[in-house]
Amino acid sequence: MVTAVEQRLSDFFVGRRPLVEPLGSVFVDAARALEDFVLRGGKRTRPAFAWTGWLGAGGNPDDPAADAVLTACSALELVQACALIHDDIIDSSRTRRGFPTVHVDYEQRHRGLGWAGDAAHHGASVAILIGDLALAWADDMTREAGLDAAAQARFAPVWAAMRTEVLGGQLLDIHGEAGGDESVAAALRINRYKTAAYTIERPLHLGAALADADAELIAAYREFGTDIGIAFQLRDDLLGVFGDPAITGKPSGDDLREGKRTVLVAEALRRGDETDPAAARLLRASLGTDIDADQVARLRTVITELGAVDAVERRISDLTERGLTALADSTATDAAKSQLRKMAQAATARAY
Amino acid sequence: MVTAVEQRLSDFFVGRRPLVEPLGSVFVDAARALEDFVLRGGKRTRPAFAWTGWLGAGGNPDDPAADAVLTACSALELVQACALIHDDIIDSSRTRRGFPTVHVDYEQRHRGLGWAGDAAHHGASVAILIGDLALAWADDMTREAGLDAAAQARFAPVWAAMRTEVLGGQLLDIHGEAGGDESVAAALRINRYKTAAYTIERPLHLGAALADADAELIAAYREFGTDIGIAFQLRDDLLGVFGDPAITGKPSGDDLREGKRTVLVAEALRRGDETDPAAARLLRASLGTDIDADQVARLRTVITELGAVDAVERRISDLTERGLTALADSTATDAAKSQLRKMAQAATARAY
Repeated sequence: MVTAVEQRLSDFFVGRRPLVEPLGSVFVDAARALEDFVLRGGKRTRPAFAWTGWLGAGGNPDDPAADAVLTACSALELVQACALIHDDIIDSSRTRRGFPTVHVDYEQRHRGLGWAGDAAHHGASVAILIGDLALAWADDMTREAGLDAAAQARFAPVWAAMRTEVLGGQLLDIHGEAGGDESVAAALRINRYKTAAYTIERPLHLGAALADADAELIAAYREFGTDIGIAFQLRDDLLGVFGDPAITGKPSGDDLREGKRTVLVAEALRRGDETDPAAARLLRASLGTDIDADQVARLRTVITELGAVDAVERRISDLTERGLTALADSTATDAAKSQLRKMAQAATARAY
Repeated sequence: MVTAVEQRLSDFFVGRRPLVEPLGSVFVDAARALEDFVLRGGKRTRPAFAWTGWLGAGGNPDDPAADAVLTACSALELVQACALIHDDIIDSSRTRRGFPTVHVDYEQRHRGLGWAGDAAHHGASVAILIGDLALAWADDMTREAGLDAAAQARFAPVWAAMRTEVLGGQLLDIHGEAGGDESVAAALRINRYKTAAYTIERPLHLGAALADADAELIAAYREFGTDIGIAFQLRDDLLGVFGDPAITGKPSGDDLREGKRTVLVAEALRRGDETDPAAARLLRASLGTDIDADQVARLRTVITELGAVDAVERRISDLTERGLTALADSTATDAAKSQLRKMAQAATARAY
């Protein structure tokens, strides 16, 4: 599946060349930077959920129409490229997957060439445009996938919802970090739209729409996708504070240093305000500051003792159970149920 | 036409509400900021060329299919919203059409609310996402326009080319300003893709494709659109240096202060290098610096005396004549020919 998705993406980039080359080497280089970014890796999670959703709704991989479906599913990786490239500007991230982020890459090229002007601003400017290109090309890839008119018509509203929701979720996230809405409800809403809808719910829904699934299966997929998607982000929130750097690839406690407004933190603050104001004060004063390893350890203890970890673990269990029940009760094929159950467990399992 | 386009856009924004409102007031506000930006004005140039292209290829406004065509043409304004919002970040522009640019608007909101973090970075981050939303919604609007499957299929490759070209043109522009490719050829290439293809050639081509025009008319439209589009930008380049601030709405000589790499400047530098190295040195030393009115006047004289203004005026005349000839010789309807001739003259006429 991963190889097939990457092949589709690679073919798509080859197909863009006649549009790109007339503009000359600068644009060829930029398109290559996007291609490298997209093909460099990632788990192809969204195409996998979309494809499995299609199979589970009766899609037959031997059907001639399967080819177009796989291409349309693969295009999700171009939406994701835009989201990551623009997010990295917004979060001022310097590296991704062991490479400089796109804006840092172009900042470094600018500096290396001794060009005029602000190198960082130049890098961000180029990365804005390369992200835009990824978003436009995602659309092109779905339009050129070879879906028939009826499939296109079923696909379009789900595709529209997915992109609007992820952009809205990112806006809420920025707003939450700047404006400091500390409520659990606000953190859950960001989680739902920025992660759950975008990563699992809507990709499954896209697959189901392409297979012309009935409303009942779509509803079951969406329930499963929302629940497992939220649980997946809650697990990620726990890993961001308690995870082993060797596994997460991020410095221990990084989410605390970044001041991320996760459900875990919102839960700890709420509990602190009710039962231990000094703990809440300490948390508020430390979040988003450059704390050292001892301070990270101290905050972990505070968050745990406030009961926030247990509360988040309970949410994960409840959501996972509810999602898996919706899946089990659905009319999805047995093979897809088994596959989706495995994917859900991988996304939500305790790993630290 | 302008009113009809604005009505379509306004209807589209109403139609997005069910997708936007579940995410809450922060996203509702952002969508409203985009709507205000789009509806605040502009000449609706691109929809006008697309619609006229469709009429000229035999499109009948009384045909039931006209409705979908007008909606698809109106969606060009959402691509343009993305281009402007992101360009304003890239160019660090503070105002547009008498209002704060989107990133400045959100920077000011951040500051006004006394939020944590860097207000300018917050403003840019929100504006990146609102621009992305405009680009995604442009696509949604064309998919939901009601075009039949055959029209969609003719539309898609032109739509794809247009967006790829404008993003490529913007990349070349940034690269040219930073890296300083001073050649006339480089300036003409930016002009062609960033302005001509995006503003006239491809909108006309889109209209023709929707009307299922034959290859001959499409070729004539593209010749006309490229020539008139380049001439339009050359006129704009002259206005940016010699224009009356009361007419252009920009401080006199602003393009010189910004260091824009226009064909006019490239032509002056080329001529200076050949015949008057001191003039070329003065130009290079002054471009992109904060020069006063006397220095602007001095540079104008230098540019004029080098013969660059006459050379650009000749290019404008030649291109306009060639474009109008291609139009006159085409099979477009007489009404469309007359309308396009007027639009070409308005875009390229001497106005200072």
